[in-house]
Amino acid sequence: MTENGTQKIVGLAPNRQHSLYGRDIVSVNQFTRPDLTYIFRVADEMRSLVKRVGATDLLKGYVLGNLFYEPSTRTSSSFIAAMERLGGSVIPIHGVQYSSVSKGESLPDTIRTLECYADVIVLRHPEIGASTVAARYASKPVISAGDGAGEHPTQGLLDLYTIYSELGAVDGLHVAMVGDLKYGRTVHSLARLLRLYDVQLSFVAPDILRLPGEIKEELAAAGRPLHETDKLDEVIAEADVIYVTRVQKERFADLALYEEVKDYYVVTPEIMSRAKERMALMHPLPRVGEIHADVDDDPRAAYFRQMENGMYIRMALLAAVLGKV
Amino acid sequence: MTENGTQKIVGLAPNRQHSLYGRDIVSVNQFTRPDLTYIFRVADEMRSLVKRVGATDLLKGYVLGNLFYEPSTRTSSSFIAAMERLGGSVIPIHGVQYSSVSKGESLPDTIRTLECYADVIVLRHPEIGASTVAARYASKPVISAGDGAGEHPTQGLLDLYTIYSELGAVDGLHVAMVGDLKYGRTVHSLARLLRLYDVQLSFVAPDILRLPGEIKEELAAAGRPLHETDKLDEVIAEADVIYVTRVQKERFADLALYEEVKDYYVVTPEIMSRAKERMALMHPLPRVGEIHADVDDDPRAAYFRQMENGMYIRMALLAAVLGKV
Amino acid sequence: MTENGTQKIVGLAPNRQHSLYGRDIVSVNQFTRPDLTYIFRVADEMRSLVKRVGATDLLKGYVLGNLFYEPSTRTSSSFIAAMERLGGSVIPIHGVQYSSVSKGESLPDTIRTLECYADVIVLRHPEIGASTVAARYASKPVISAGDGAGEHPTQGLLDLYTIYSELGAVDGLHVAMVGDLKYGRTVHSLARLLRLYDVQLSFVAPDILRLPGEIKEELAAAGRPLHETDKLDEVIAEADVIYVTRVQKERFADLALYEEVKDYYVVTPEIMSRAKERMALMHPLPRVGEIHADVDDDPRAAYFRQMENGMYIRMALLAAVLGKV
Repeated sequence: MTENGTQKIVGLAPNRQHSLYGRDIVSVNQFTRPDLTYIFRVADEMRSLVKRVGATDLLKGYVLGNLFYEPSTRTSSSFIAAMERLGGSVIPIHGVQYSSVSKGESLPDTIRTLECYADVIVLRHPEIGASTVAARYASKPVISAGDGAGEHPTQGLLDLYTIYSELGAVDGLHVAMVGDLKYGRTVHSLARLLRLYDVQLSFVAPDILRLPGEIKEELAAAGRPLHETDKLDEVIAEADVIYVTRVQKERFADLALYEEVKDYYVVTPEIMSRAKERMALMHPLPRVGEIHADVDDDPRAAYFRQMENGMYIRMALLAAVLGKV
Repeated sequence: MTENGTQKIVGLAPNRQHSLYGRDIVSVNQFTRPDLTYIFRVADEMRSLVKRVGATDLLKGYVLGNLFYEPSTRTSSSFIAAMERLGGSVIPIHGVQYSSVSKGESLPDTIRTLECYADVIVLRHPEIGASTVAARYASKPVISAGDGAGEHPTQGLLDLYTIYSELGAVDGLHVAMVGDLKYGRTVHSLARLLRLYDVQLSFVAPDILRLPGEIKEELAAAGRPLHETDKLDEVIAEADVIYVTRVQKERFADLALYEEVKDYYVVTPEIMSRAKERMALMHPLPRVGEIHADVDDDPRAAYFRQMENGMYIRMALLAAVLGKV
Repeated sequence: MTENGTQKIVGLAPNRQHSLYGRDIVSVNQFTRPDLTYIFRVADEMRSLVKRVGATDLLKGYVLGNLFYEPSTRTSSSFIAAMERLGGSVIPIHGVQYSSVSKGESLPDTIRTLECYADVIVLRHPEIGASTVAARYASKPVISAGDGAGEHPTQGLLDLYTIYSELGAVDGLHVAMVGDLKYGRTVHSLARLLRLYDVQLSFVAPDILRLPGEIKEELAAAGRPLHETDKLDEVIAEADVIYVTRVQKERFADLALYEEVKDYYVVTPEIMSRAKERMALMHPLPRVGEIHADVDDDPRAAYFRQMENGMYIRMALLAAVLGKV
């Protein structure tokens, strides 16, 4: 099923009332604000449930096919934990590239085989658009866990949910994104989701790693004001959210330039001393030096809670597409 | 325990009435017709159960050791799903070749270690006869998931079950096998199982890929008429089952010969237009061009249902050897 | 939390009465005799439970993060089976070295991410001290599954438990360790645990593979008499426990020396004929010739029961650190 299309038929007696039942999750662009409000409410319930009793039997008897064509321990573990805490089971298919499944078999055939065994499929694939192809052929719901330089919608959702969760709302905030804004897939997904909210956006990056024009145009079309700079200093005191990503040495042809700029994008306790008292410092992780470990105990350091939110968002999505919320 | 020998003792309170309880599944030759009838009846029940409620608690508390010495995502996923839908758990041991278990340790020692943790063992191994060796040393039931060029009994069972399931019976049918009949392990297993039924057999292959003499002799000894040809055309209008396998380029020393014959063994909508109205087109998958994607929507295209049947057959076998049906 | 420190907070309603609740398991040195007596009593209960009904729901809703930075099929399978037989679920993270988690991310960050998803973490790591580092950063309990040439505490516990289980007690026994006593991590762990018991110790090894001075000093400090020899013959008739380890060819610079000594450390039925009638022959496995397969049926051959005990010990530890015993 393509996004926003008709519902897929999933095996067991479902709650047919909500719009995510039987749907695929393949793009952040598929969501409306009511969708997001609904997902966050369910994620809140999942968090409360996990804190209170650890797990539930909501998806008992359901099987998730966790199909990873490239390794992503963080994302795959998060989906596995989400399914298990909902009482369901997992077929873990990692490192597919080494197996006979990938030897010449088409993605549609692999997906149609896997859905003979599973009730829902999570797909990580190195090629842009793979999830959309998979979703088209599958009769069971497909959730993208990232396809190449393309989409990683559940990451976008967990990032947005973390902002909502840390600060109580999204409208009215000043969100600053920092680091590699050109290649950072998570930045693009989050920026696109933020189009739906009344936010002020700042993009802090060295010249060669600025946000792609395409996304700037989408934000402009949505009427979102945006400010670009190469200085974290300019926004540190004003931002409600600082979303840091890694500036990779490999992106620089001129290493002298890298050496010159890299320290501008490293968050230290000193820098945090100039930030607002109530704000959220985020990072999609893994980090390699962009945020000092000394910042970890700062109550505004939200990145590990962000990881945890990933599990609640994925619990919400799994339950929703299977019609069990 | 060797095939057809005495029952193994398995831990929990079992139903001791049926002959598969405590037995190993290592060869298609171990089955009688009553065995097969029984397995298919249980598989029917498993299908009905999955369609109705998705899963059961029949094997709750049981643990499957899924030991794969070579990758086979399709087969391992099918066994994992089968165990999970029965309420049991799985120890997934894939890619053993990279691990210390394989460094010098004998297969019997590995098996005897694994059965300390598991209630039933599924073994995939590159060497012919490995499952039989494993079964001899194990006190818990061993189910072969294929050993090298040798047996792959659960594949044979799911293929036969698909014929039964698609057409309501096996006796009286005309079954045509197409493609690489020389090296195709699944063809050999299915042919051997069909000896037990009153069927007419056609084998369609280029000269260099004909069925081995040994299997032809076994079929003759069982009184099964068989017909060999290199032309699919000869059987397409008569066959109740067309079982297609892949003709691999690598098998041909003379590539000109490969180019000449390859298109004779590709199933297209045009070819299907000449087939019987009620028949089953099967393929063990993966396919790489032997059946056009345009055929997939033909109601006679049974190959994805065949995949699904693999799960029901494996559910039936797991429940049966553990004495829970 | 560091060893013997304050309890960690773990999510669900726990039994707060026992000292292992919320603790890490990172070293054999952290245990007192009452700890060991308690662990063995719980392991006895786990064995009885598995023999009687196969599994329990004690850890239903709990999730184990099984994080293996190097392959160890035996240990990881044992932990998976332990968690599953307790009714819990597992996030299997094997082969981490190939994944993005290991690409530059620090161990503390990986651990703090994983504990967002899991209730308890089992860690296997190639570097000495990694488990202690992980335990310091984690707020959930960490159980070491071996770190490099350092500790492998659950192996030490299962070895000691096997002695207790085979012979009914540990005090008063004569324990002989045989083979590579220099590099054998399991020998070191067991020797350290035996300091707490009134035992007589013999160490049988070729000169170049003798027990390290450091461990001999620890034993002397604890007042344990010890005897060193290079002849198995000297102890075979007296020992209550013979603990055999592998003498690896690679350890010998002088291969002539290897050829000369290797047969002194191979246990055959002939050698067993000179051992006590009531004793236990142990081996941590895998073995590669150190014990003849002909010995396997000897009732004194305890090594496969030793494997099985590993599962009961790990069940006991998982339940204990989560406060559910």
